[in-house]
Amino acid sequence: MKHLLSTADLSKDDAILLLDTAAQMAATQSREIKKLPTLRGRTVVNLFFEDSTRTRISFETAAKRLSADVINFSAKGSSVSKGESLKDTALTLHAMGADAVVVRHWASGAPYQLAHAGWLDAAVLNAGDGTHQHPTQALLDAFTIRRHLVGRRGGGDPDGVGADLAGLRVAIVGDVLHSRVARSNVALLRTLGAEVTLVSPPTLLPVGVESWPCRTSYDLDATLADWRPDAVMMLRVQRERMSGGSGGAFFPSPLEYTRYYGLDARRLALLDDHAIVMHPGPMNRGLEISAEAADSDRAVIVEQVANGVAVRMAALYLLLAGDPSAEGNDL
Amino acid sequence: MKHLLSTADLSKDDAILLLDTAAQMAATQSREIKKLPTLRGRTVVNLFFEDSTRTRISFETAAKRLSADVINFSAKGSSVSKGESLKDTALTLHAMGADAVVVRHWASGAPYQLAHAGWLDAAVLNAGDGTHQHPTQALLDAFTIRRHLVGRRGGGDPDGVGADLAGLRVAIVGDVLHSRVARSNVALLRTLGAEVTLVSPPTLLPVGVESWPCRTSYDLDATLADWRPDAVMMLRVQRERMSGGSGGAFFPSPLEYTRYYGLDARRLALLDDHAIVMHPGPMNRGLEISAEAADSDRAVIVEQVANGVAVRMAALYLLLAGDPSAEGNDL
Amino acid sequence: MKHLLSTADLSKDDAILLLDTAAQMAATQSREIKKLPTLRGRTVVNLFFEDSTRTRISFETAAKRLSADVINFSAKGSSVSKGESLKDTALTLHAMGADAVVVRHWASGAPYQLAHAGWLDAAVLNAGDGTHQHPTQALLDAFTIRRHLVGRRGGGDPDGVGADLAGLRVAIVGDVLHSRVARSNVALLRTLGAEVTLVSPPTLLPVGVESWPCRTSYDLDATLADWRPDAVMMLRVQRERMSGGSGGAFFPSPLEYTRYYGLDARRLALLDDHAIVMHPGPMNRGLEISAEAADSDRAVIVEQVANGVAVRMAALYLLLAGDPSAEGNDL
Repeated sequence: MKHLLSTADLSKDDAILLLDTAAQMAATQSREIKKLPTLRGRTVVNLFFEDSTRTRISFETAAKRLSADVINFSAKGSSVSKGESLKDTALTLHAMGADAVVVRHWASGAPYQLAHAGWLDAAVLNAGDGTHQHPTQALLDAFTIRRHLVGRRGGGDPDGVGADLAGLRVAIVGDVLHSRVARSNVALLRTLGAEVTLVSPPTLLPVGVESWPCRTSYDLDATLADWRPDAVMMLRVQRERMSGGSGGAFFPSPLEYTRYYGLDARRLALLDDHAIVMHPGPMNRGLEISAEAADSDRAVIVEQVANGVAVRMAALYLLLAGDPSAEGNDL
Repeated sequence: MKHLLSTADLSKDDAILLLDTAAQMAATQSREIKKLPTLRGRTVVNLFFEDSTRTRISFETAAKRLSADVINFSAKGSSVSKGESLKDTALTLHAMGADAVVVRHWASGAPYQLAHAGWLDAAVLNAGDGTHQHPTQALLDAFTIRRHLVGRRGGGDPDGVGADLAGLRVAIVGDVLHSRVARSNVALLRTLGAEVTLVSPPTLLPVGVESWPCRTSYDLDATLADWRPDAVMMLRVQRERMSGGSGGAFFPSPLEYTRYYGLDARRLALLDDHAIVMHPGPMNRGLEISAEAADSDRAVIVEQVANGVAVRMAALYLLLAGDPSAEGNDL
Repeated sequence: MKHLLSTADLSKDDAILLLDTAAQMAATQSREIKKLPTLRGRTVVNLFFEDSTRTRISFETAAKRLSADVINFSAKGSSVSKGESLKDTALTLHAMGADAVVVRHWASGAPYQLAHAGWLDAAVLNAGDGTHQHPTQALLDAFTIRRHLVGRRGGGDPDGVGADLAGLRVAIVGDVLHSRVARSNVALLRTLGAEVTLVSPPTLLPVGVESWPCRTSYDLDATLADWRPDAVMMLRVQRERMSGGSGGAFFPSPLEYTRYYGLDARRLALLDDHAIVMHPGPMNRGLEISAEAADSDRAVIVEQVANGVAVRMAALYLLLAGDPSAEGNDL
C-alpha cells in the first residue's frame, strides 16, 4: 500500500493486515507505554479543506503516538482560499518534505488527484472527500465489529486477529445519499464477507444503489425484526440539509425522520442480545438516535472513537514504515 | 488531587504543595535545562470553548516543557458548534486517551460536569468557567505574592517555600461581579491566611458578597491610604460590557471608571514602599491601569505570566505524575 | 546576529554564512536523518498578525526539524484583537520564555519594534512586515539562485558554498510598489553582487525607486530580450488590490497585466538556456504566470519552497545555537 484512498481499493488481505496492525497498536495503548518511536523525524500534514475537529485530532493523536511531527494546515484563511490550486498546495507540501498528507476535502476525488497526479511523493490518507469515501472510518467500524462479534464471542483472539466478517449482518441506517461513511462501509464490509442492508427513506438512497453489493430497505422496523442484524450503524443527520439546505427537498421533517428512522428504546428491544449499536459521531441525540440508545450497553460508540486512533496509527505505520510482519519491522 | 476545578476546593496543604511544586518548576526553567521528561507519552488536550490565546499558550508551554503531547481543540468551528453535547465531546476525548483536559468554557460549572459526570477518567483542569473560577490564575497570583512579599522580604527561601500568606493584605479592584479571577483569588487568599478587600462600584459587586470572607469598599483612595494593602490586584475591564453589552446598565462610563477605580501615578504614590501591583492581563492601558502604573517598578505583571507557566507545570505534574515529594517521584 | 529583521542589515559575510548553513541543513534533509537535536527544549513562537499558512508551516517545519517546541499564536481572535498592545504581547511571550519569535505583521516596522524596544530577549525573525521586508524569502531566493547558477554550472560545490552572486542578472517583475519580496531581494542581491532590474508598470513602482541600487524598466519583453537576465522572479499579484482595493487606481486590468507583465510561453522562449524562473508563491496561474511557464523545466518554484525550510532552519540555528563553524558547534 502506498496510499489509503478508498475502501473499494483494499484487497481482503490488505484490509485484514490493517485491522490486525490496529489490534497491535491498540495493545500498545495502555497508559504506560503509549508512545512508539516508529515515525520519529517523519512529518504528517493534516490538510483540512473542511472543519472536522474529531477526525483531525484522531489523526493528530495517532501520529504523535508514533512520534511523528504533525503540522496542521487548515485551508480556511490560507492561500488556498486566495485561489491557490490543489496542485500548488500539493507541490508546496512536497517541497516541505511531508511524508504523509491526511486530506479532508469537500470535493469527491480530491485525495485521488493528490495521490496520483504526480505532485507529491508523500503517502495520501483520505480523511473524507465529499460524499465519496472516508476509509479510516470504515476500518474503525470493521475493527469494532470484529472485536465485538468475532473476537469476544469466538473464544479465540479477543480482537479477532486474522479473521474476516463472514456471516455477519450490518444494517446502515439514514441519509445514505450524502454519506461517505455508508459508501466506505458497504465496500469494506463486503470485502470482509459481511452482508449489508441500507435502510433509508426512498429520497435519500442514491441513484444506482441497485448495483451496490447490498440490500436496501425503507423499513427500519422490518429490517430489525426480520433480517436480524448483528450490528446497526446509525448515520449522522446533517441538520443543515434539513433546514432548506441543498438536499432539503429530499428530507423528511425532523419529527418524521425520528419516527421512521430514529433508533430508540423500542427499536433497541427488537435487536438480538448480542447485537451492537454504532454511530460515527457526532450524534444528534433525539434525532437519529435517542439518548437511551446512545447510552445503552449495546452502544459501542465511544469504543469506535478509541479504535479510530488505533486504526489511524496502523494506517500511518503501514504506509510510512512498511509491513510490521516483515523482517526487521517488529512493532 | 485528581482535578483542579476551583480554589474553593483546595485545602491549605494542597495549595502550599502546588505553590512549592511551582517553585521547583520555576527553578528548572533556566534556559539550559528547560525540558523535563516527566510527562513523555501523556496527552494534554486544550479544550477551549472561548478564545483565550494567553491561557492556552501558557498551558501548552507548560505541558510541552514536561514533554507531554498537546492537542489543541478549539470548540469553535468544531462539531461542538454543530450541536454536539459536552458529554459526547468528553466521551470522545476519553476514547482518544486524553490524560488531562484543560477546559475553558463560557458556562460556569462546565469543568465540574466534565470531571464528575463519569464521562472521562482524565484529570480536568479548569482554565476559566463563566464568571465562576480560574484556579491557576489565583495560584499564580498567590505564587507571585508569596515570592515578593514573603520570600524576598523574609530572608529565608527566596520563593517563600512552605509559607502561607498570613498577615498580608490584598486589594482586588474592579468589576468583581463578572470576574472569575476575583472569586478564585478571594477563596485561595483566605485559605492561605491573607486578608482581602474588594474595591468596586456598588453596581459591580455581586449579590451576596456580604457572605464572602472579605471586606468590600467603594472607595479606592481610602482603601489604599487607610487599609494599606501589600498587593493591589487590578481586574481587567471587559470593554464589550461597557458598550451597551449585557452588563452595560451597571457600568460607569470609561472616564468615570478610570477616575474612580483606575490605578494611576497619584494612587501609586499612596502605596507602601514594598507594595506590589498586579493585573491578570491583558491590560487596558489608560482604562483600569495607566501606562505609568503598568510599567512601574512595583508592577509584577510580567512576572505573573512567567509564574503562570510554572504553576501550570506544577498542576499538570501533581495531577498526572503524583506528589513530587513521594518516594520515587523526585523532580 | 541576534535577530533577522531585514536583508538591508545583513553584511555580505552574514548573508553567505546564512546561505552556507542552509546548504548544510539541506544536506541533512534526506529522508533518513531529518531531525536534528540542536534546539531541543527551545521554544519558537509563531506570532502571526496576518494569515500566511505557507510561511507559518515552513517556519514550523524548520523549527520541528531542529527539535524545538513550536507554539502557534494567531493574533486573530486573541486578546490582541481585544486591544492588547504589541508591547504587552511581547512582554507575555518574554515571560513565557520564548527563545525565538517569528513575527508576521501587517505594519511595516513591527518586527523592529519587537526586537529593539527592550520588551523581549528572544531572537526576532521577521516573517513579513507590511510592504517592508521578508528576509527569509530573499534568502531562499538567493540560495536557489546560487545553487542553480553558481553551484551546478561552476563544476565546484553543487550548492555554490562560499560563493556570492557576482555577475548574475535578476529581473524582478510585477507590483513592486506593494512588495516586501521585491524590497528584500533588491537589498540582498546587491549585497551578494548581483545586478537587478525591476520590471513594472509605471504606477506600481515606488516613489524614490531611482535611489534603489538597481535598474528599472516598464518593458518586460525588452528586458528579457536585451538585458538577458539569468533569473526572472515573478511577483504575486494581490487580486484584492485589483478589484477596487486600496491600490486599485494604480492597477491595470487583469487582461492588460497579463499581456504586458505576465510570463508565458512566448516570453519563456526569449530567455537564455540556463535562465531560471522563480515565484514566491502562491501563484495566480493565468495572471502573472501561465501554467506553461509555471510547470516548465526552467521553473524552480517548488525547489524554492524546499529551500525555504533549509534557510529557516539555518536562521533559527544561527540565532539560537550560534555559528556552526565555531568550535563545539558542529552540525
